[in-house]
Order: sequence, then C-alpha cells, then structure tokens
Amino acid sequence: MSLTIIGTVAFDSVKTPYGEVDKVIGGAATFAGWAASYLYQHIQLVSIIGNDWPEAEMKKMTSRGIDVSGIEIVKGGKSFYWKGEYDKNMIDRTTLATDLNVLDDFDPKLPEHYKKSEYLMLGNLTPEIQQQVIGQMTKKPKLIVMDTMNFWIDIARDALIDTIRKVDVLSINDEEARLLSGEYNLLRAADRILEYGLQYLIIKKGEHGALLFSKDDMFFAPALPLAEITDPTGAGDSFAGGMMGYLASQGDVSFEHMKMSLIYGAAMGSFCVEDYSIKKLQSLTPEMIKTRVKDLIELSKINIEA
Amino acid sequence: MSLTIIGTVAFDSVKTPYGEVDKVIGGAATFAGWAASYLYQHIQLVSIIGNDWPEAEMKKMTSRGIDVSGIEIVKGGKSFYWKGEYDKNMIDRTTLATDLNVLDDFDPKLPEHYKKSEYLMLGNLTPEIQQQVIGQMTKKPKLIVMDTMNFWIDIARDALIDTIRKVDVLSINDEEARLLSGEYNLLRAADRILEYGLQYLIIKKGEHGALLFSKDDMFFAPALPLAEITDPTGAGDSFAGGMMGYLASQGDVSFEHMKMSLIYGAAMGSFCVEDYSIKKLQSLTPEMIKTRVKDLIELSKINIEA
Repeated sequence: MSLTIIGTVAFDSVKTPYGEVDKVIGGAATFAGWAASYLYQHIQLVSIIGNDWPEAEMKKMTSRGIDVSGIEIVKGGKSFYWKGEYDKNMIDRTTLATDLNVLDDFDPKLPEHYKKSEYLMLGNLTPEIQQQVIGQMTKKPKLIVMDTMNFWIDIARDALIDTIRKVDVLSINDEEARLLSGEYNLLRAADRILEYGLQYLIIKKGEHGALLFSKDDMFFAPALPLAEITDPTGAGDSFAGGMMGYLASQGDVSFEHMKMSLIYGAAMGSFCVEDYSIKKLQSLTPEMIKTRVKDLIELSKINIEA
Repeated sequence: MSLTIIGTVAFDSVKTPYGEVDKVIGGAATFAGWAASYLYQHIQLVSIIGNDWPEAEMKKMTSRGIDVSGIEIVKGGKSFYWKGEYDKNMIDRTTLATDLNVLDDFDPKLPEHYKKSEYLMLGNLTPEIQQQVIGQMTKKPKLIVMDTMNFWIDIARDALIDTIRKVDVLSINDEEARLLSGEYNLLRAADRILEYGLQYLIIKKGEHGALLFSKDDMFFAPALPLAEITDPTGAGDSFAGGMMGYLASQGDVSFEHMKMSLIYGAAMGSFCVEDYSIKKLQSLTPEMIKTRVKDLIELSKINIEA
C-alpha cells in the first residue's frame, strides 16, 4: 500500500500586509507530502527540482519516511519559483513571478515501485503530464484525485476534461468549478462536473470551508476560523495532503470516510497558514492534529434533538 | 410567554438577473414574523404602516395567531418602500430607492400586553428607537436580540454601542462586524464586540453560513447550498425569525440551544430565498421545516470516529 503524490517542489517568495519571506521552501508536493506524512507512512513523491533545492530539506523528508526517489534532480538547473503578494483579506493574491525553470521540461518517470500505488494524488500540472502519470500505473489505483487550476480550464479545456474522465475525484475551488461547468450556482456546477464520470467532487471555498459531492450525497466541511493567518500559501495543497493521508491510512473511500478526509484536510490547511512556508507543518505532533480535528468536528456539531 | 418583534412592515421591488417583482410584501418584521410563526405561537409585532398596506395580508398574519395590535396604521400615509437590484451572484445588491414614508415618524408605543415579553427581537432601526423599545419593557426580557446595519455603525456609532450594551445578542453580518470592531479578522472582531457585554454574538456570512460566539465558545452553522435562488430579500430577517421562534419555543437560551436556533434560522432563510417576497414562507408545513433542519444538521455531520 502506498500514496503517490505528484506536484511541484519549489521556492516561494511571499508578501502579505503583515510580513514577507524570500525564496522559502514551497511547492504543492512539498506541502501535500508533509501534511500527509502525519497520517500515513508510505508516501512517494514525484517531482523535478534543480540542484539549488536544499539537500537538508530532502533529508528531512526522507527521515520522515517520505520516498523522494521519484524527484528528479536536474544538475545545474533551477527549481520552480513563485512569487506573490496577498491582499489584506489574505485570500486574493497577485502573482509577481512564475519561473518554471526545470518544470518546463518535466517528463515524469515513475520509479517501478511507485507504479502499483493504491492512492494517487495528481497536483496541479498540465493535463498531459497528469495523464502521462496515470498511464504509467501498472495497476489501477483505488483512488486517483486530481487538482487543477483556472489556467488549464482556459487554455487546455479538452485535454483537461479528458484527464478528469480518467480520475475518481476532482478537487477544485469554487471559481474553477464555475469556470469549468459554466454554472454560477455551485450545486448545478457540481451536477455538471460529476457527469464527467467522477465518483466524488470537492469544491474548496477557502476560509468558507469545502463541499464534497457524490451523485447522491453532499457534505460541507467548515474551515476553522483562525485569529492569526501568517501565510495562506500551500493551504490547498496541505488540505489535499491531509485528505489523501487520511484516506490512505483508512484504506476506505466510502462517502463517510471521504467526509472525514475533508476534516483532516481542513485541519492540515489550518495549520499550514499559521506560519510561512512549511514551518508549521514541520513542527506538528499527533496530539495537535487530534485536537484540531476534534475542534473542527465540534465546530458544527449539534448535541440536542431537533 | 411571548416573542415581540419590532421592525419594518413594508413594500419591496426586487430585480434579479432572472426576474423581477414590483411592490410586493416586504419588511423585516413581516419576514421574521412569518418565519417565527411556524415554531412558536405567541408572536407580537411592532411596526408602522400606511393604509396602503393590504388588509388581506394583515388578516393572514392574524389568522396565523400573530398579534398585530402593535402595528400602527397611519391613515393617508404610505408604507416604507425599498427597491433594489441584485448582482448575478445574488448577494451584492444596489439600492435603487428607499422611501421611508411613515417610518420617518416611527415612535413605537408598545401595547401593554407586549411589555412583559420574554423574547424581544429588535430589527434594524435607529439605535434610538431600539432603546426606546427596551425602555418600555416593564419586565427584563429573558433574551433581547438586536440587528443593525453599516449605516448606523457609520453615522450613529455611540448611540449604537449604547444600545448594544443593553441587549443580550447582536446579530450582524461579517462586513458589519469588521466595521464595528475595526478588526478584519472575524475571531478578533468577535472578541472586541463581545466586550460590550453581550452574551452572544452572531456573525452572518450569507451563503457561507453563520458563526455564533460566546466568551468561551464558538459554533458554525452552515448554509444549505441551493440549486435555485429566486430572491435573497428577507433571508436575514427570516433567519432572525426562525432563530427567535425556536428559542421562544424552547424557553432555553443555553449555548446548545443557541446553536440549534442558528440551524432553524438557516432553514427559514433557505426557504425564504426560494421565492419572491414572503410567498414561500406563507406555504410551509411543519414537515418541510423538519426535513430542512435535518438536512442542515446532516450537511456537516460526521458519523465515524476521528
């Protein structure tokens, strides 16, 4: 049993109205891998980096049991770099730089022992790369979850829909759901998107929580209101990591377990934003996670009869 | 035991991207009264109207057991009128007309049998009128809940805060909470606002649900995602009515009952928006409400162990 996560391993520079950091550890697979690592032990990353990405950080992942043999290191290459600035609402952001660097030539080759992973998380990459990874699996995974972004909906719609048809779960935000479906209303958007043959659809609403849809069911996972948000970068990826880590640990993808996976996702996302980069994610304890998950369940729990 | 609701009884003209209605029944007390009437039997309204407001609608309320003896009818006067247009998101709206008419001279005089109400809902009116009503109570109510709006926060801040100090619960939306507290973050805004001596604070986030705060506790009531929203007008007032009706029916204002009251509020708000004016609120059955409340509780309910 294993969980394979494909996505960026990168550097971020982040500015908020309250502070800034320059060229810190970032990347979807980094956040997702760290978040998942508290919930499940057999995590395998697929990515590409330059040899500018700190070896010490690779070692920290390895020492947590994260398999990094699927991360290609390009000698003399530079790692993917993103720079952005957040609005005072800590949601809206302006991208100031996106340097693809080695990511421009990313042609993922899964190590042999990755190819039978039961759980596969396809981070936001080109639909072609996502499909290429699916194509390398020698055994049909129990659950394939994919992320994407408005950019691919705009410029590679057909390839994207083709990829969606090959996965079990699509995880997108509300604006992407609207863009993809052409429906403003999220319930109708969900109906449309599920028609691509998805088992589940997750619509993330940031600080407003996340919705889970199957053909017959709907669930809403609240986000925990936080007094301090230091850096929202990576929250969605931490959400995905928490979700996948929980599911892989349970070996059960029923609707009830999917619901709980969103709670674990929300918990890991809420930790992520409490500090810059992966700092908070690197300093969690099982007790902290247990308490956060309990707080999230309690947040909307009714204890008396209607 | 009784529930007294003070607020507007009015006419609305509403335009949305999907349709429009002209001079239909509206007003905060109308929506709140109808919503509460399904949950509690001893409802007393306080308002002012012109004799242009249809007698048939007064009779409908009376026949539901709503006491309208506190509604002053000004002969030859015109009822309060609001005209607005909604954006395609069905949230943002532009006010096209606000004709105060008889509301301009509103000087509420509570009928004697209203003055010992255990539950008092102060709809959005001037802070002075809200205080005047509190001053007329001959017995301290079990729970006084007040609504307000950004307008009063802007132009009558001191009088408003003075009023808040005299009530148990303030119910406002997220933008109003930010404006009132000077804090963007809602947790910190809640801390500040609770310092005015409130027992509970409710922060409504529209389609994103509502938060309930006490000094030590927090609860989040989700809003039910709906496939069709016909007219958002009155949703907040229906929320307030559902909440107050439930609380009065239980005679219990503990945090657990407050939590459930938000669910009833969300249920009544969700019905309200399914049709124009009070049309949907006039055609509910106890069974429909029970189902909606159950759906809302199920929406965020976790059934397995963390």
